[in-house]
Amino acid sequence: MLFTKTPTDRVSQLGEIALISKIGKWLGEVSPDSPHGMGDDCAVLPASNRKQLLTTDVLTYGQHFDDSVAPQDAGAKLIKRNLSDIAAMGGTPESAVLALLCGPDVCLTWLEQFFEGIRQSCETYGVQIVGGDVSSLPPGQFCAVLTLTGTVDTSKLRNTAKIGDRLYVTGSLGGSILKKHYAFTPRIEEGQWLANKTECSAMMDITDGLAKDLQALLPDTASAALMLDHIPISETAISYAKTTGRSALEHAFCDGEDYELLFALSATADPEAFEAQWRAHFPELKLSRIGQICERSPKGPYLDATTNEALPWTHGFEHLKSE
Amino acid sequence: MLFTKTPTDRVSQLGEIALISKIGKWLGEVSPDSPHGMGDDCAVLPASNRKQLLTTDVLTYGQHFDDSVAPQDAGAKLIKRNLSDIAAMGGTPESAVLALLCGPDVCLTWLEQFFEGIRQSCETYGVQIVGGDVSSLPPGQFCAVLTLTGTVDTSKLRNTAKIGDRLYVTGSLGGSILKKHYAFTPRIEEGQWLANKTECSAMMDITDGLAKDLQALLPDTASAALMLDHIPISETAISYAKTTGRSALEHAFCDGEDYELLFALSATADPEAFEAQWRAHFPELKLSRIGQICERSPKGPYLDATTNEALPWTHGFEHLKSE
Repeated sequence: MLFTKTPTDRVSQLGEIALISKIGKWLGEVSPDSPHGMGDDCAVLPASNRKQLLTTDVLTYGQHFDDSVAPQDAGAKLIKRNLSDIAAMGGTPESAVLALLCGPDVCLTWLEQFFEGIRQSCETYGVQIVGGDVSSLPPGQFCAVLTLTGTVDTSKLRNTAKIGDRLYVTGSLGGSILKKHYAFTPRIEEGQWLANKTECSAMMDITDGLAKDLQALLPDTASAALMLDHIPISETAISYAKTTGRSALEHAFCDGEDYELLFALSATADPEAFEAQWRAHFPELKLSRIGQICERSPKGPYLDATTNEALPWTHGFEHLKSE
Repeated sequence: MLFTKTPTDRVSQLGEIALISKIGKWLGEVSPDSPHGMGDDCAVLPASNRKQLLTTDVLTYGQHFDDSVAPQDAGAKLIKRNLSDIAAMGGTPESAVLALLCGPDVCLTWLEQFFEGIRQSCETYGVQIVGGDVSSLPPGQFCAVLTLTGTVDTSKLRNTAKIGDRLYVTGSLGGSILKKHYAFTPRIEEGQWLANKTECSAMMDITDGLAKDLQALLPDTASAALMLDHIPISETAISYAKTTGRSALEHAFCDGEDYELLFALSATADPEAFEAQWRAHFPELKLSRIGQICERSPKGPYLDATTNEALPWTHGFEHLKSE
């Protein structure tokens, strides 16, 4: 468990210096020596002739994971959430700094396993943890903030799609709360491949649900005509729907934490040819053409492409809002 | 006050999107548009032929500031803490990302003033806030994590001093808890000037007290012989000592959050000539030669240079440790 009453296994029995030293050991080769890594006032990273990417994400106990998630999976999630942002720009991940906020009762055994998940993900994706900070929270609380850098030559943005462009999503959507919210694969290679395609006109990752995130990809004067039978509903969304009384399609639209790529293909591109290229490169990852960007409809941002009627789902997951 | 019971002034009445939009307005020109700033999955920063610096620091209510600190000062402190780390490497600050962790009862009026302090500090030191994340904490809690990037040609590290090198500190030490912990000036220009001096053999900033931080500057096989009458005791430390029953010298050694530079001057350099150069460049910032690195003494890390006896202060501020 994340918190413990056993005095010798509590983070508060270590000082900051001892904890940072332990973290360095837990991370192993993923934590290089100073000056490229921990141990000085800043990490010193080599110059690069590529553009730099910078992103930060929070992982909070009770919000982004709970006691049902193994500590290794929670640690991996912290890294992969940020990796998904780098993937969405078509970038290559590089170095990260980690701020750790711990209640005094955070369990050292749990924390070691959390860092095991961090280490494994960093090894898999070539990330190095080069610095950080530790600070305290009241008992019963835990929060980690990872800031990840990356590099990119040609990045894809969210706001560059045009009317007429086709809309695509990778993988399948919905029901992530049951497992995928931590057991997902950031789409790094796919993002890099798409970033090099001039016909990919805009890209982002889906973190707060298709219903919320797709609005960020649409030009201000546009709606999206969506083919409902092309929305890739996950098996989990179908199972989950049986317990919630909501439709699996609604879950695919509105659930958060899919960590799939959402992108637009230029209206002038040949979608069949593009899809054939995709299948040749990524035979194991499903790609779904879910619709097309159209002139703004007074009916709303999303239309059923078959009936031309407005879809009812326009909101995904909203952080903070509680009143 | 940081927290409020007035429903319309609570952060929870806004969603994440509305809050991020407000933050963008509060930051004004310090928050550039996407892709260099907020609004996409990552910020995209231009390539640079200089080495990159990366540092992260946490600012927590109840730990790094309390209700006696004005919100503008708390916001400025968040930026300046990180700037002090960039200064300690001799770097130039560039871009930052900000993670905000808010209880639902955080007051929007307070938060606007907090961001006013952030904006002013960013303008003063040429920092841009290019992205971030918001997340929730239980009521009564507030925490901000800033990750700051910088660039540098020749950086100064902590662990490169040698036996025989002289030890220097800028400004004066101790008693920061009374005001200086937020009302300090990061030593950016001084750090850059020192980074270009080959005779400066190592550098860091003093954040956890001279007693703790100086140990990081000493080689493993060394102690420091300190001239106690050269330790720059602040006026505040003298006032504070009258209320604590501890000596002003002890406060100068052991109090945290001085945010001054601590550096070593090569044994082969002429200290008087170096000090004359300092005075010519920085006439308003006191520089104190506090001692010299010597062979490791069995008596301890710090010796009184006059008596050759061990000094009793070897610990500064330790985060987390509470049991």
